[in-house]
Amino acid sequence: MPHTSPDVLRAFVTSLYAAAGLPGEDAALVADTLVQADMWGHSSHGVMRAPWYIDRVRAGTMKPVTAPEVVVDAGAIAVIDGRDGVGQVITKRAMEDAIRRAKAHGVGIVSVRESNHHGALGYFTHMAAGQGFVGMLTTNGSPAMPPWGGRTKLLGNNPWSIAAPAGRHAPMMLDIANTMVARGKIFLARQKGIPIPDSWAIDAQGRRTTDPVAALGGVILPMAEHKGYGITVMMDVLSGVLSGSGIMDEVSGPYQAEKRSRCGHMVMALNIEAFGPRSRFEARMEEMIARIKAVPLAEGFDEVFYPGEIEARNEERHRQQGLDVPAQIRQDLSRTAAQLGVPLPECW
Amino acid sequence: MPHTSPDVLRAFVTSLYAAAGLPGEDAALVADTLVQADMWGHSSHGVMRAPWYIDRVRAGTMKPVTAPEVVVDAGAIAVIDGRDGVGQVITKRAMEDAIRRAKAHGVGIVSVRESNHHGALGYFTHMAAGQGFVGMLTTNGSPAMPPWGGRTKLLGNNPWSIAAPAGRHAPMMLDIANTMVARGKIFLARQKGIPIPDSWAIDAQGRRTTDPVAALGGVILPMAEHKGYGITVMMDVLSGVLSGSGIMDEVSGPYQAEKRSRCGHMVMALNIEAFGPRSRFEARMEEMIARIKAVPLAEGFDEVFYPGEIEARNEERHRQQGLDVPAQIRQDLSRTAAQLGVPLPECW
Repeated sequence: MPHTSPDVLRAFVTSLYAAAGLPGEDAALVADTLVQADMWGHSSHGVMRAPWYIDRVRAGTMKPVTAPEVVVDAGAIAVIDGRDGVGQVITKRAMEDAIRRAKAHGVGIVSVRESNHHGALGYFTHMAAGQGFVGMLTTNGSPAMPPWGGRTKLLGNNPWSIAAPAGRHAPMMLDIANTMVARGKIFLARQKGIPIPDSWAIDAQGRRTTDPVAALGGVILPMAEHKGYGITVMMDVLSGVLSGSGIMDEVSGPYQAEKRSRCGHMVMALNIEAFGPRSRFEARMEEMIARIKAVPLAEGFDEVFYPGEIEARNEERHRQQGLDVPAQIRQDLSRTAAQLGVPLPECW
Repeated sequence: MPHTSPDVLRAFVTSLYAAAGLPGEDAALVADTLVQADMWGHSSHGVMRAPWYIDRVRAGTMKPVTAPEVVVDAGAIAVIDGRDGVGQVITKRAMEDAIRRAKAHGVGIVSVRESNHHGALGYFTHMAAGQGFVGMLTTNGSPAMPPWGGRTKLLGNNPWSIAAPAGRHAPMMLDIANTMVARGKIFLARQKGIPIPDSWAIDAQGRRTTDPVAALGGVILPMAEHKGYGITVMMDVLSGVLSGSGIMDEVSGPYQAEKRSRCGHMVMALNIEAFGPRSRFEARMEEMIARIKAVPLAEGFDEVFYPGEIEARNEERHRQQGLDVPAQIRQDLSRTAAQLGVPLPECW
């Protein structure tokens, strides 16, 4: 399989979004977020999503021209209504706004309602970390898990992310969803015909199961049992209730092109410099990373990574070697390009 | 076993702390936090801790008179140095300060360094929720788990809590640590002679184990594998690095009377009213709770609870029936009382 240069891929996906009606700068941003996720090794949030998102623009549930309305503008905080614009564009502007507020007040929070799926959250918190801020971001998502003790989906996996500058290292970055496991891992077990751990899912009758087929007919459980349930509910409170957006099953997924997303976010920046010298913060982060990496290894591990290090290493490798874009994803992108009248890159 | 009235227990523990040198109001606060944890059913953070904390005062590692120094006072944020005062007193004042700042700026953050263990975090976030704020609190703690892939303890279980008002219901409240399981559960398995799940702990050689004895000689793993590891590191960044406090194994536990704690916290309040009408927020919280509780049940469950509901129900029951204080804890408290010359309550 030929490797594709990130620049070529970024330019191609930018032209797809531009052809779908996004202003040039916004098209370039969305393409950059998707390619960045692939660079980090998070292909589930990479360019494979471009056709889904573009279908939403074509269906009218995501507006190509993002024009948020400022509902509250009050010093350290703001509330904005995304008016069904492009999630990545709304979130980037919200993070810039939070950073601006944090410069003046030490902390800035932008609460976002009526947005759209915005891909890998780490893109936006990483952006804040690159500018000397601790970035935090929460979102709600379409139903993915039951409340703890229930057997039907009601709550999203409601991802959240925190990132912080780490001196001479790439930023420290957490970016997680609150489900036990990605659905893809259960598909894989079914394909291989192997059982799954009974902590992953319950079947349609609400019983723990090790059978991947029964699990796919049931629901995936929260990570860490009741703790992950509690976290996901709180992320919905911060993202959906506080902002006045959709909550729980009022939020639709990115692949449901015909439905408005109604997701909400909380976007936050802390100005490290306001709390103390940034040099002290970064020196302590370097110390923390050095100590973490020096711990003796457990069985089955070759190295201990700090949060975000694997992504940074993947990015470096992909920058040098290019990205592997699987045949299925190439085909999907080619079809979208044909629909929009966009030429394919050379060497595609 | 006789049931003890919460009021009697509170008054007794208050007099213990007062005899140890805490000002009356501070003694009453600490006693209230401990009794409240017992009321919620979190006895591991209840009055059983009073002798440990008082030993710290007697050892001089926790100052009886809390006199924090304000290091930064900058609008929406502040940094305070707890100067080894009483953790609960420092944290309550920090939350009051965060609420005051949130009234003016929409959000308030107080970053705390050189504090002490403050018991159940939910006490302080619950306090914020009772006043119409979303309360958030993070702390770091003494080493409890390895970084993911390592085999020796370096990171705390770094608890964190978020609470929000929930209309006619008791506040919604999350209050969790990031380890897979409390050490007490492994002791219990050893006592019963039963194996533990292999996701709980590794032995001293860094191998997954189902043997509780080997697990107790090794280390407990983070909840949700690498995710819990990432969360706990980030809670140390927010609590320890940002505030300029101790981090990782620089932090000592509450039962190590001879060592300064050096723990740090991040205390945060969001003024709901600044983001939109509080009535809308609370109506949505009630709607969320109603939907959560109406979900069909999974096998083995009789009811679905919203986060914080079990605690509220336990509190109600204990208010009516009194608290069961186990004989061992009564003895420990009696010994502390004798050392301090404090009379025991009638009917003890």
